[in-house]
Amino acid sequence: MQPLPLGATIGILGDGQLGRMLSQAASRLGFRVAIYGPEDDSPAASVSAVSVVGGYRDEAALRAFAEQCDVITLEFENIPVETVDFLTGLGKVVAPSSHALGITQDRVHEKTFARGNGVDTVDFATIESEADIAPALERLGVPAVLKTRREGYDGKGQAWIKSADEAAEAWAAIGGKPAILEARADFDREISVVAARGHDGAVKVFPIGENHHVGGILATTTAPADVPDDVHAQAHEIARKVLDGLGYVGVLAVELFVLKSGGLLLNEIAPRVHNSGHWTQEGCVCDQFEQHIRAVAGWPLGDVSARCRIEMTNLLGDDILNWAELAAEPRARLHVYGKAEPRPGRKMGHINRILT
Amino acid sequence: MQPLPLGATIGILGDGQLGRMLSQAASRLGFRVAIYGPEDDSPAASVSAVSVVGGYRDEAALRAFAEQCDVITLEFENIPVETVDFLTGLGKVVAPSSHALGITQDRVHEKTFARGNGVDTVDFATIESEADIAPALERLGVPAVLKTRREGYDGKGQAWIKSADEAAEAWAAIGGKPAILEARADFDREISVVAARGHDGAVKVFPIGENHHVGGILATTTAPADVPDDVHAQAHEIARKVLDGLGYVGVLAVELFVLKSGGLLLNEIAPRVHNSGHWTQEGCVCDQFEQHIRAVAGWPLGDVSARCRIEMTNLLGDDILNWAELAAEPRARLHVYGKAEPRPGRKMGHINRILT
Repeated sequence: MQPLPLGATIGILGDGQLGRMLSQAASRLGFRVAIYGPEDDSPAASVSAVSVVGGYRDEAALRAFAEQCDVITLEFENIPVETVDFLTGLGKVVAPSSHALGITQDRVHEKTFARGNGVDTVDFATIESEADIAPALERLGVPAVLKTRREGYDGKGQAWIKSADEAAEAWAAIGGKPAILEARADFDREISVVAARGHDGAVKVFPIGENHHVGGILATTTAPADVPDDVHAQAHEIARKVLDGLGYVGVLAVELFVLKSGGLLLNEIAPRVHNSGHWTQEGCVCDQFEQHIRAVAGWPLGDVSARCRIEMTNLLGDDILNWAELAAEPRARLHVYGKAEPRPGRKMGHINRILT
Repeated sequence: MQPLPLGATIGILGDGQLGRMLSQAASRLGFRVAIYGPEDDSPAASVSAVSVVGGYRDEAALRAFAEQCDVITLEFENIPVETVDFLTGLGKVVAPSSHALGITQDRVHEKTFARGNGVDTVDFATIESEADIAPALERLGVPAVLKTRREGYDGKGQAWIKSADEAAEAWAAIGGKPAILEARADFDREISVVAARGHDGAVKVFPIGENHHVGGILATTTAPADVPDDVHAQAHEIARKVLDGLGYVGVLAVELFVLKSGGLLLNEIAPRVHNSGHWTQEGCVCDQFEQHIRAVAGWPLGDVSARCRIEMTNLLGDDILNWAELAAEPRARLHVYGKAEPRPGRKMGHINRILT
């Protein structure tokens, strides 16, 4: 693809905080931005030149959106594959592709893809019905975690099973949907690697972040993580295998478990910019949002060098009510998403604290 | 003033690149932004939630704008004082005030104000008509520079006079308007100091930048400037005198000449964020745009510590056509303003190169 010229319009499917920060990065590079999403006056639409409101199956609205866009990307991994195919059918370049989305939207496909590309994952079993759970537990051992194959994020759509007796309850808890049962990983640390691939196959990998989750939701990322050289090298190799295996264009994140043995297991792939990459805004020369825009626009990928060490802390729900105190901290930058209601657990903003 | 809460709307008079970067900083802090200016789809409007199009004397449009704003600021120093008074009369807080604007819009008032507040300037004379030029030249010596009292920027509205014979020509060149004649300063270097003052009188001063002008237009700023401690201290003191003397709220820039003797002379005050402060985006923890928004919103002023040394280079006119090469540079961040036509000398963007 020829690099998009200045003034071209980048379309973004999805209107949340990731779309907002992508839009701001695109504007900084001289692009216009059009947002497609269910709401007007959303976090992303309120900082963008164009907003088209519609559902992801609304072909008339999608067509009106596509007509304004020179290239289309997304901020939300559960955009229906059919939506992307419809836009591609209109002759638009959409990055990442529906192929990459289709694989990463389904936990069984995702892990099968990873293993097929030489990336280890936890052991898992496909669960079609409650009856599949007991034999799978036999093989995987307890505890194990039952997750819906599709959707579910921030710990939603998941249930731990500590013994075979709990199978029925867990099956009911996840709504009796097609599922995956995953063995427990004997891990020490959770890290993630955020990386980009261009239309030309060029790859750049950001320094690794170490994540701490609380209640299934990311609480903090500290980066660059203090990990041994071989963990660093393995993580970079995994990012490259995933990007090349998917024929991916844009930024993605791979969440990894670091085992006590020092090996790495792939936990999840997010086919988009990712919360664990927010530290790059103050931490790297080019941040993940600009990098994603560069990749989808066919521009050269940016410099991923770390400028310093950062601790990124999510501001969930009422945490944002402390904005006055947070804004007064030295050596820190506050990012607020412009959402009206601080519901419990809702991602309202984050703060990047410069550690060194 | 009570700090503006998240979700409040900040109005900005003016729709150019400074408004664009102010808008993006305001969004990052969780504010909505309304832009007032002569064009829709301007650099600032295209990244903001609300755009009201109108002239600065259009009271109906100004009223419609004001109704949407919790506080109003500006990105352009030649907003008519009457416009600010009209908005203040509607009960709106406007920062900076019409008092500060009125002084800084007129070169004679500005220099008189500076001297009255203990800040040295070049010697000058008020010129009402061509006949005033010859006696003023007698006193100030040649060469001297004739400038219109009002408007004029980037070297426009100025004419150098090398001998009394050139008075008529210079008077014609500036359009025969009320003028100031300024003695030549025997300076070594041009620096600028960008600083902020809050509603509560708190002051923070950014590290000093050293400027290089080409053809009357800023070409580069290097910062923090390598200046002796006493120059640093004098510049900070001048910033504080100017801010306090004007009762200023927001960010302003003071351009200074560093004399061969080591003394400083005030050249010009810009009552707004300033091109010579663009380096702070990658150079400081809190940049000048966020600092201005914090000040006008009644938030605590941000941390002005330098993170590294930066060389900011303006991209004028066709310079922007090298975007592909500029975007490929490591250790640099490109900022593009989203203007359609790269006319000669027009500010189209800038690049901040990390030097250390």
